[in-house]
Amino acid sequence: MIRLGIVGYGNLGRGAELAIQNSEDMELVAVFSRRNLDHPLSQPLDGIEQWRSKVDVLILCGGSATDLPEQGPLLAQWFHTVDSFDTHARIPEYFEKMDAISRGCETVSVVSTGWDPGLFSLMRVLGDSVLPKGTSYTFWGRGVSQGHSDAIRRIAGVKDARQYTVPSEDAMNRVRSGENPELSTREKHTRECYVVLEEGADADRIQHEIKEMPNYFSDYDTTVTFITQQEMARDHAELPHGGRVFHSGLTGEGQHHGMDFGLKLDSNPEFTASVLIAYARAVHRLVAVRDYGAHTVLDVPLGLLSPRTADELRRSMV
Amino acid sequence: MIRLGIVGYGNLGRGAELAIQNSEDMELVAVFSRRNLDHPLSQPLDGIEQWRSKVDVLILCGGSATDLPEQGPLLAQWFHTVDSFDTHARIPEYFEKMDAISRGCETVSVVSTGWDPGLFSLMRVLGDSVLPKGTSYTFWGRGVSQGHSDAIRRIAGVKDARQYTVPSEDAMNRVRSGENPELSTREKHTRECYVVLEEGADADRIQHEIKEMPNYFSDYDTTVTFITQQEMARDHAELPHGGRVFHSGLTGEGQHHGMDFGLKLDSNPEFTASVLIAYARAVHRLVAVRDYGAHTVLDVPLGLLSPRTADELRRSMV
Repeated sequence: MIRLGIVGYGNLGRGAELAIQNSEDMELVAVFSRRNLDHPLSQPLDGIEQWRSKVDVLILCGGSATDLPEQGPLLAQWFHTVDSFDTHARIPEYFEKMDAISRGCETVSVVSTGWDPGLFSLMRVLGDSVLPKGTSYTFWGRGVSQGHSDAIRRIAGVKDARQYTVPSEDAMNRVRSGENPELSTREKHTRECYVVLEEGADADRIQHEIKEMPNYFSDYDTTVTFITQQEMARDHAELPHGGRVFHSGLTGEGQHHGMDFGLKLDSNPEFTASVLIAYARAVHRLVAVRDYGAHTVLDVPLGLLSPRTADELRRSMV
Repeated sequence: MIRLGIVGYGNLGRGAELAIQNSEDMELVAVFSRRNLDHPLSQPLDGIEQWRSKVDVLILCGGSATDLPEQGPLLAQWFHTVDSFDTHARIPEYFEKMDAISRGCETVSVVSTGWDPGLFSLMRVLGDSVLPKGTSYTFWGRGVSQGHSDAIRRIAGVKDARQYTVPSEDAMNRVRSGENPELSTREKHTRECYVVLEEGADADRIQHEIKEMPNYFSDYDTTVTFITQQEMARDHAELPHGGRVFHSGLTGEGQHHGMDFGLKLDSNPEFTASVLIAYARAVHRLVAVRDYGAHTVLDVPLGLLSPRTADELRRSMV
């Protein structure tokens, strides 16, 4: 049995617990948190290093903004880890830091896994490698963006908000047809916002602030719908997501080839956690061959994600 | 530059030549054949072992029925190789043989790559590993099956034939919806046959022989259309293919997740060859770290397929 610890018990941490229950070769031994959790396996994060001999792989379930940049390098001193660091622009810097510590301390870390970065990264590299005369397109949604929802909630007068990223069916169909279009940000996705106002708040002013918000909304066609707190609870309690990576390329005398990989997820955190757990299995195997240091999904053979033996996979799945 | 040799110059070998032209880090140095080819790089297959120091990786483009079972083990003594051995039931046996020779002779081989086996194998293992409470479905087509076309051509009175494997849209939609259906062979695919008769041949008898042929057609709904040789040349000269792997699974309290990977290929041999060439790059890198022996696609990190450095991939594609 692979003994796993979870660090952080939000949506992703709870998803990891569920994913471990689906894995017959794994057991959860501790859930570490700064908070006092109502959980039979709860342990304080302070003093976690005493668990070194009792945990094979640690699943880091904190956020990328502040938790992981601090916790990753700290915990990689003592533990083999897997995480979902997803601030794309800062991945090289995070990787370098984790790699230096993991090599120095003889630990294995897999960083930035999940589905994007993660499975979608695999597909972009696969497309680019197999069809170098080609173009990749990534579409996200329809799904809830936590970051965009949070940005709306920070506006004065907003009580609650939920933002859906919606891919343009028209843009996807143009890509699917092999047309190889140049697509602007506005053409690829639209943004739907559902907002609960505080009493007496100015709806017009808030709608304007959302639509003009730089980086988050100003480059998109954005719709804002005001709803009640009851409607929010009834219609927007789930965290669905998904998306699709297309790669479209040519060989020979203009023969066209299309590759695409899609996800349709009822629960973004439960699926992301399932990917983390599969990579935790790979971490355990990389430890066995002393392949220390940081790895991304691009460095890990996919056969290592499976509980099945290499021989069984060749017989039944290749 | 990675120096490549091609063994066998049929459709796949010609596709490999085109794929090498699209790869800036590779050059073709020889095309080996038992036949005397009209090609500037033509070399006799006899005496190929003299090319050991001049070829980094050999692309084996022979067929799985008789060429590869003989050529693979012979050539893996002297060369690092990549092949598309695709008789699924015999892959474990072929792998064992290639592995023993490659380890003994300190060569690297990647066997059974292409798209199925190959990229589709990756997707089946990925789905099964990430969502263990789930089911995978593979659909092929619409595309030309060489094996089924050949089987029809062997019937007395048949001058030429082309067989298309066609996936059932209805079955794919049921899978896509998350229904998790049990699908019989007959429900998943149909088979369309286009046949040119020899003069005076008995169309009724031939149609009957095709539809009742065990293993190939008897378990499918098969249509047979008789056409002229001119129609065959005009409408059926290309070798398109494709297919889709679905994996459908559950987490937690019945949250459903769907993953799918699809290919739509104008030219089956040109795309298959493009996959082989990307894996040839991986072979070259596995040699550099002395990771001798046979590998399937499941054993090779996807980052090794790319001409880009690991650092560049982390910056631009993860």
